[in-house]
Amino acid sequence: MAQINAHYLKLKAGYLFPEIARRVKAFTDANPEAAKRLIRCGIGDVTEPLPEAARTAMKKAVDELGDRASFRGYGPEQGYDFLRSAIGQHEYRSRGVEVADDEIFISDGSKCDTGNILDIFGGGNTIAITDPVYPVYVDTNVMAGHTGEADDSGAYSGLVYLKCGPANGFVPEVPQEKADLIYLCYPNNPTGAVATRAQLEAWVAYARQHGSILLYDAAYGDYIQDPSIPRSIYEIPGARECAIEFRSFSKSGGFTGVRCAWTVVPKALTGTTPEGARHPLHPLWSRRHTTKFNGVSYPVQRAAEALYSPEGKAQVQALITHYMGNAKILREAAAAAGLPVYGGEHAPYIWVGAPKGLSSWQVFDRMLEAACVVITPGSGFGSAGEGYFRISAFNSRANAEEVARRLGAMAW
Amino acid sequence: MAQINAHYLKLKAGYLFPEIARRVKAFTDANPEAAKRLIRCGIGDVTEPLPEAARTAMKKAVDELGDRASFRGYGPEQGYDFLRSAIGQHEYRSRGVEVADDEIFISDGSKCDTGNILDIFGGGNTIAITDPVYPVYVDTNVMAGHTGEADDSGAYSGLVYLKCGPANGFVPEVPQEKADLIYLCYPNNPTGAVATRAQLEAWVAYARQHGSILLYDAAYGDYIQDPSIPRSIYEIPGARECAIEFRSFSKSGGFTGVRCAWTVVPKALTGTTPEGARHPLHPLWSRRHTTKFNGVSYPVQRAAEALYSPEGKAQVQALITHYMGNAKILREAAAAAGLPVYGGEHAPYIWVGAPKGLSSWQVFDRMLEAACVVITPGSGFGSAGEGYFRISAFNSRANAEEVARRLGAMAW
Repeated sequence: MAQINAHYLKLKAGYLFPEIARRVKAFTDANPEAAKRLIRCGIGDVTEPLPEAARTAMKKAVDELGDRASFRGYGPEQGYDFLRSAIGQHEYRSRGVEVADDEIFISDGSKCDTGNILDIFGGGNTIAITDPVYPVYVDTNVMAGHTGEADDSGAYSGLVYLKCGPANGFVPEVPQEKADLIYLCYPNNPTGAVATRAQLEAWVAYARQHGSILLYDAAYGDYIQDPSIPRSIYEIPGARECAIEFRSFSKSGGFTGVRCAWTVVPKALTGTTPEGARHPLHPLWSRRHTTKFNGVSYPVQRAAEALYSPEGKAQVQALITHYMGNAKILREAAAAAGLPVYGGEHAPYIWVGAPKGLSSWQVFDRMLEAACVVITPGSGFGSAGEGYFRISAFNSRANAEEVARRLGAMAW
Repeated sequence: MAQINAHYLKLKAGYLFPEIARRVKAFTDANPEAAKRLIRCGIGDVTEPLPEAARTAMKKAVDELGDRASFRGYGPEQGYDFLRSAIGQHEYRSRGVEVADDEIFISDGSKCDTGNILDIFGGGNTIAITDPVYPVYVDTNVMAGHTGEADDSGAYSGLVYLKCGPANGFVPEVPQEKADLIYLCYPNNPTGAVATRAQLEAWVAYARQHGSILLYDAAYGDYIQDPSIPRSIYEIPGARECAIEFRSFSKSGGFTGVRCAWTVVPKALTGTTPEGARHPLHPLWSRRHTTKFNGVSYPVQRAAEALYSPEGKAQVQALITHYMGNAKILREAAAAAGLPVYGGEHAPYIWVGAPKGLSSWQVFDRMLEAACVVITPGSGFGSAGEGYFRISAFNSRANAEEVARRLGAMAW
């Protein structure tokens, strides 16, 4: 009898976004006229056109595939050299950060990589996550059998939850206890918080002291406006010995439907064998990536490369400027409505405290019914998110302005 | 201290194709003149242009992404309905095979899916593979901790090896012992063998009797020339209760560099919980796919859909006809050289017995040095492949004819 992976049965049934979709559908079915005014600021998906440089490169690559002389079949699983080298140069070395091209693994998404990375780690590690948190970090650990059951609040036994709130600026202090794998995401989804250099230095020191690995998700790094805030964990000395970094073209180049990302595994990074010997992680991830993945679509890799051309860079910057302009409008509107506002200065997410006495889902329902605006309830990201909601700045300018207007008109 | 997944340390260092690349490089470095005559019939990668229907659809989709009104970001992780429904209709229902659209999961490759599928199964299953075998099935089980160490022949303890050879037509009989997960690949990589309806009926009966799951890899299904040979395992009654099927556009539509495939998990399919209850696999794979994957690139899905248009179908058929024409030429040349020849009638691979006394790698070296032709040594696919070599028919017609000529001129 084939046995299932019973750890899957511990997963909570309702992932956040299906529940949002269900409530939105119920509302729009019941209120077809109001539905026409609906504005979605829920899921963090880009809305503006794919940059022209990427489109041109992608179509040129498709044409190459139409000619036997320039046809390409399987590429290197780790990614084409042209893209690894463009990333290495433009994202790291030109900023004074040491990352070699062959430490960069091209993939089809940071969501995939942050889940798949667990393949190369053993089952005995203590896992730490922030609360609130991007749900994929939790769910993939549940699937891998790294947790017990969830309690009524949705928290799984066996995980170390690092609480984030206004008191610590939504960046957790290093814990007293030992943690072996620590997920950090800055700029943060969902809170929009960023970690300062000093905060990251503390985490790197902690990881080096304990032999821990930081799983550093910087998918929103391009939204950082202040050059003193690190975009990459490798800006911190010593991080090459204790951190894996996840980056993506999804939110910078508008690639959510096109699919391209990368992960950096420095060659200096090691874990321990059951016998206590140090073993480099780079060959393990390389083996995983080449065995269970077959490379990103060639035209997509050419599209990503084109984002580093002068035109591509300008077009990416225009996208960031657009979304950050929305973020400013939404931040100011929420603040003017008298609500506590966080994030949105170096991230496309605004994290807003609920009006007194309202739960996250109550705010969701009220925003939907009174303003026809879809937001994301903070409690969907963990119990420490209760009492907050997330507004996404991924939208047209006209929609952002309209949401700001409706926020101002809300009677809480 | 972060612990690594120590099962990775059991993996044999040299994957087949890196060793081939090393020997070819040594030869071409030492013989630059001969290198100009080199013809590669090793790795199973397509060579002919991407069908025009796919290219046109892909470029149109890229243009859509350039317009805010038709822009698409995240798609459904399981794939767009337009592609799931095209596959369901053209690959299954129009052939009288019952598969529902929502049982079809679009992915970026069968290699990925045949590896990732293990995520939803428990650690206590007995795994059976054929010998010779596509190495990914073995390596992903080693990584998941389903095996012990490898012996000198490269065989891992804990796996059930089903020997394939001329006596059983390279299709194994059902075993006496119990196996819970059984990998079957037909048309076969590397032997080019196909399984008859009666053989597949025996496997379905075995699986139903024992509660086993067949992991049926039919990535080369479109190369089947005889309509009495099943293209899909679901042509066998009862297979919906015991089989997962992996299919791909890589070898039919020339998509090896474009990346699109699909996996069918029927809703009737179940595994057992540790408590012995039956549990459907469909929601488990759906949860895995939506949590650890973010969908195939939208332009790629449009390209795949276009292969089902009348023009697309004709262009795919032309590719198959081309490669199968090569296979015929290569089959006949190997037979004329007095070698035992298998496969190549319903598959793009010809499986050839080595001249008496030569090992697979000796044939490899002799073909490289004497004929400047790269083949794949059969022993790279398992110990039962020793004494064979694989010739790939993925090539230009001129190259296939030249390889045939050189085969005929070889003095063994």
